[in-house]
Amino acid sequence: MSEMRKDPITNRWVIVRTESGAGPSTMMPPPEDPEPAVCPFCEGNEHMTPPEIFALRNIGTSPNGKGWQVRVVANRFPVLGIEGGKEGQGLFDKMNGIGAHAMIIESPAHGAGLNTHGREVLTRILEVYRLRMLDLIRDLRFHYILVFRNEGHEAGGHLRHPHSQMVATPVTPREVKSELQGARDYFLYKDRCIFCDMIRAEKEDGRRVVWENRDYVSFCPFASRSPFEMWILPKEHSPDFYRLSSEGLAGMAEVLDQSMKRLAGALNRPQYNMVLHSGPNRRERRDYWQTIDHDFHWHMEIIPRFTPYSGFEWGTGFFINPTPPEESAAFLRELKIP
Amino acid sequence: MSEMRKDPITNRWVIVRTESGAGPSTMMPPPEDPEPAVCPFCEGNEHMTPPEIFALRNIGTSPNGKGWQVRVVANRFPVLGIEGGKEGQGLFDKMNGIGAHAMIIESPAHGAGLNTHGREVLTRILEVYRLRMLDLIRDLRFHYILVFRNEGHEAGGHLRHPHSQMVATPVTPREVKSELQGARDYFLYKDRCIFCDMIRAEKEDGRRVVWENRDYVSFCPFASRSPFEMWILPKEHSPDFYRLSSEGLAGMAEVLDQSMKRLAGALNRPQYNMVLHSGPNRRERRDYWQTIDHDFHWHMEIIPRFTPYSGFEWGTGFFINPTPPEESAAFLRELKIP
Repeated sequence: MSEMRKDPITNRWVIVRTESGAGPSTMMPPPEDPEPAVCPFCEGNEHMTPPEIFALRNIGTSPNGKGWQVRVVANRFPVLGIEGGKEGQGLFDKMNGIGAHAMIIESPAHGAGLNTHGREVLTRILEVYRLRMLDLIRDLRFHYILVFRNEGHEAGGHLRHPHSQMVATPVTPREVKSELQGARDYFLYKDRCIFCDMIRAEKEDGRRVVWENRDYVSFCPFASRSPFEMWILPKEHSPDFYRLSSEGLAGMAEVLDQSMKRLAGALNRPQYNMVLHSGPNRRERRDYWQTIDHDFHWHMEIIPRFTPYSGFEWGTGFFINPTPPEESAAFLRELKIP
Repeated sequence: MSEMRKDPITNRWVIVRTESGAGPSTMMPPPEDPEPAVCPFCEGNEHMTPPEIFALRNIGTSPNGKGWQVRVVANRFPVLGIEGGKEGQGLFDKMNGIGAHAMIIESPAHGAGLNTHGREVLTRILEVYRLRMLDLIRDLRFHYILVFRNEGHEAGGHLRHPHSQMVATPVTPREVKSELQGARDYFLYKDRCIFCDMIRAEKEDGRRVVWENRDYVSFCPFASRSPFEMWILPKEHSPDFYRLSSEGLAGMAEVLDQSMKRLAGALNRPQYNMVLHSGPNRRERRDYWQTIDHDFHWHMEIIPRFTPYSGFEWGTGFFINPTPPEESAAFLRELKIP
């Protein structure tokens, strides 16, 4: 069980686990998990995970057995659970941690990653993101659905087996609100989508572009937070990832494959976070973001991680990037990949 | 040299180092510094640091020699330098990275920390924060002065020798703006300081209070981002840390000493970030924050660090805290300390 608490000053939400501890040792977060001897995400070990919620499977195979291509299971330690409601306590607001938290096991191949899956597997993974989003979006208690990925210790990753995560949250996350607000302000002022304008500016300038195909572009953003940060955007305006067609998924898989192969070529075993920012769910949207179909534009952000967040970042919210994105992009663009 | 770049969507600032790299190896951040064989912050090694900007010294000793109690030097790799101006590039805004970045060497004792300095040394350190702020605040190019501290690898700390850092920034940091905005909204609505109301609420409730003396209170905030997060606030309303009297500094040193000794008792060698949020500098304040003398309240935040920031935090801005602050506070409050 968990509850969500809002800081009354900044409106920052925190998810607090509320199982009562029995003393200081149980109050601590679990120690860094060593790689388990037997991988619960490998084929044949399906009994080691919670039952599957969804899977793409070979014909003739059964749920929770071998023969899957992409497999979705509940997170054993979900950051948010399924029941709850909102509540106030004087100055303080809280709600039970309503939500959902799933692990998307990307492939049976234990040692694979976004850079080695290849276009076909990546297309399947993106298709699973899309299908799971379409399912979760029907629950009106969820205001937002986030897909993310933690690769490597510096990025908060634990299990080696390639997996993404999907969390449904009962409020629109602060980082997403910040993008929605900025995009809306720009739209109200200029009557244009800021992401569409950014794609145009990046293509004209060219120095920060990493790779593009007909429908997508990958670039290192002007205000990159880390060396080799990359954003991937569809060239055609669309607020929602889940509206993609099969052809759209394949194009996205191609540019993701190219981008991640380049990142792996630039860095020896890169550690990174990936987040997929799609528009907020309908209900939230109707209340607050009337223009959103026109002003928000879904995108994927890939943020390599080198150093922990320090007091400077905590205290300011500013980031320090030791490498100009123009240099990062030139390096990635010119890299020969297999 | 560095420049500050603004993300046009979220208005998030990034500090980008602009020295040109000569290839991929120089584009990377420096590898984790091993503890140097000779500590540049120890007494007798004053020649290993940039010349001192300020020091509290024993009578009869000379700058850049032995005999100091607290010593302030420039950071060798400042996140922000001294010259610059603002500039636009179509969609994108940037400015040269104007600012200042100093290291405050807290004591000659190599192995000391906030939990072992003792009240007298802590009072001196706080006095140096105050004096350096008063000096930097006179430079009208600086909109904000942040004091922070990184203890341990998970907190972004490198050198073992106890030190704080002070950075002057040319724009008000996003995290501070978020607090200023929240505090102003509350003040305009209720005509009261939200921090004063929070102190009242915490004292009435009592479950999250860690320690207090006549003038200060230390508590685990309702929406704590991590186990054992602590905030220290002066009970009397004041927007600016630098207005403290000598007596005020001594009271603050006492509650800081108590809080950090308790944290060290709860965790074996805690890793944490400390940030001191004082009001923004005068010039900025006149422009944007007319009510600030009444609505903002300086405070210190101490955030223990256990796990790296993951894709969930990046994508949402939400935090996950495995321990209810009521349990953290009870444990700290009841701890017997030496």
